[in-house]
Amino acid sequence: MTFPIPPGTRDVLPDEMRELHAVMDGLRASLEQAGYGEVRTPTVEYEDVLRQGDARAAGAGWRLFDEHGRLLVLRSDMTIPIARLVGTRLGDQDGPLRLSYSGQAFRSVTRGSGQLTEFLQVGAELIGVAGVEGDAEIVSLVIEALSACGLRRHSVGLGDGALYRALLAAFELADEDADALMASLMHRDLVGLEQRVRAAGLPEALYVVPGLRGGAGVLDRAEELMGEVAATALIELRGLHDELSSRGFADRLILDLGLVHELGYYTGAVFELYDPAVGFALGGGGRYDQLMGRFGKPRPACGVALNVQNVHIAQAAEEKMR
Amino acid sequence: MTFPIPPGTRDVLPDEMRELHAVMDGLRASLEQAGYGEVRTPTVEYEDVLRQGDARAAGAGWRLFDEHGRLLVLRSDMTIPIARLVGTRLGDQDGPLRLSYSGQAFRSVTRGSGQLTEFLQVGAELIGVAGVEGDAEIVSLVIEALSACGLRRHSVGLGDGALYRALLAAFELADEDADALMASLMHRDLVGLEQRVRAAGLPEALYVVPGLRGGAGVLDRAEELMGEVAATALIELRGLHDELSSRGFADRLILDLGLVHELGYYTGAVFELYDPAVGFALGGGGRYDQLMGRFGKPRPACGVALNVQNVHIAQAAEEKMR
Repeated sequence: MTFPIPPGTRDVLPDEMRELHAVMDGLRASLEQAGYGEVRTPTVEYEDVLRQGDARAAGAGWRLFDEHGRLLVLRSDMTIPIARLVGTRLGDQDGPLRLSYSGQAFRSVTRGSGQLTEFLQVGAELIGVAGVEGDAEIVSLVIEALSACGLRRHSVGLGDGALYRALLAAFELADEDADALMASLMHRDLVGLEQRVRAAGLPEALYVVPGLRGGAGVLDRAEELMGEVAATALIELRGLHDELSSRGFADRLILDLGLVHELGYYTGAVFELYDPAVGFALGGGGRYDQLMGRFGKPRPACGVALNVQNVHIAQAAEEKMR
Repeated sequence: MTFPIPPGTRDVLPDEMRELHAVMDGLRASLEQAGYGEVRTPTVEYEDVLRQGDARAAGAGWRLFDEHGRLLVLRSDMTIPIARLVGTRLGDQDGPLRLSYSGQAFRSVTRGSGQLTEFLQVGAELIGVAGVEGDAEIVSLVIEALSACGLRRHSVGLGDGALYRALLAAFELADEDADALMASLMHRDLVGLEQRVRAAGLPEALYVVPGLRGGAGVLDRAEELMGEVAATALIELRGLHDELSSRGFADRLILDLGLVHELGYYTGAVFELYDPAVGFALGGGGRYDQLMGRFGKPRPACGVALNVQNVHIAQAAEEKMR
């Protein structure tokens, strides 16, 4: 007899659990010290409530029905539940809200593969602080939280979630073409993207811009290629890059104009966390200024989430290298 | 617009979350210090795998389907998943296994009410130590863990999960009558139990025994009423009472021969944790010597689980009284 567990889930034994707790406690302590009070929301939410935040996010979860046949989902991220929480419980608070969380989330590994996964997240949301000021606080917070749990060589990829859409709009692409290009970009398939753009005889900026990756020179090159298109995004991104550099993080930054996130609610800066010891992102986040208004008073917001197990693997790999 | 959350679930804001973490960290530290290494299992399990442990436990959870139409459930307790984990991953280990856990579980509030609930548990399982020795270790562990997180007046109700079934068997009751009496007892409906026994002209021991509650005198009275029936259970219970008394816990013990648990896998001692500041149990557990063998090598086992939120409420109430 075998007793399987669902694909994408796992059992954790005591030695690893002790290390995961150390990572989690380190991250949570950093967030708490920076004034981010931890909240907890239900593991299961009504599907139509999550859909209010983002249809794609609601669809990414595991589904079940309650006793009245109402559709429930296992939460696929914490940002939408926290937007709901702020709208319903903290809506009357003025001034910035700093909230953090830790807990399980459930998501499709690859869209359409049917493969689902349960993972442990720690994250933070800064609500009520707009633009570069808010973005810089969140990015600094996560860099320092990763340092506090023992990482030394971690870096941040910085992009803008609205930039490529602005480019698509500027060239007045048909929806079909725009969707196809966006899909290639979301799969980080820059070769496929270039082939599609060339085959359709579209402007080369549509594959050259998302291929730009590196230091501040990336922004100069993008300005040449894009002109007035997405000028706001580029100005914001330069401002964020300058602000983070002035805080001493210059060496950790990688501008990446091809960085987009799958979830639809990002409206400005987006970022991903990396460590050279491992080949996958440790987490990511970005600015979502339209989300809070869907559950209450419109407020600018920016957040970040880390995959605790990925951080743990990076930390262990870094330790081996010392 | 309102944005409800499923009944039986809740949002937790930072002040309460900080206190819940303090309770959880205190409990977890106690268990870890006593040698109980923490494990984690998936939030969602296959329904037929949980059913291998106990049909009732599997049915108590929230249900969903995977992409192949296979039935999944949100775990309703951690004991069966840990039995599965031990059978599949730790089966070759000899000697006692001491495991602990913390995490969410999902259960019907009242069977058949359709009302479901998500709750946070911390618990421990001692595998491979039989009888009074194992029971006393687990009960001592949980008394001390509650003391470590600030409770002062907590107590333990002690009963035997097999005792009433032995009584029913001894009087050779029809299954129908036996089920009806068992159902009354599970709902702690001693008045209904007495009425049923009297109406059916059954022996009075069937309602007098489960009404026995108090000090060691309870066991003398039960011996008079039951004679040879359930003699083993009474000897074990007396042994556990003596052992815990010799460890200095005499003042905390309440023998309760009507204590039965809903889950079917208990085979010996059962217990519940109380605090006089609150009107509900903080948690409970017991001996389940038949469960491990359903997933691998048969081994005696005993475990306990605490509801973290209930412990927190008791702790806060105790603090107010000081």
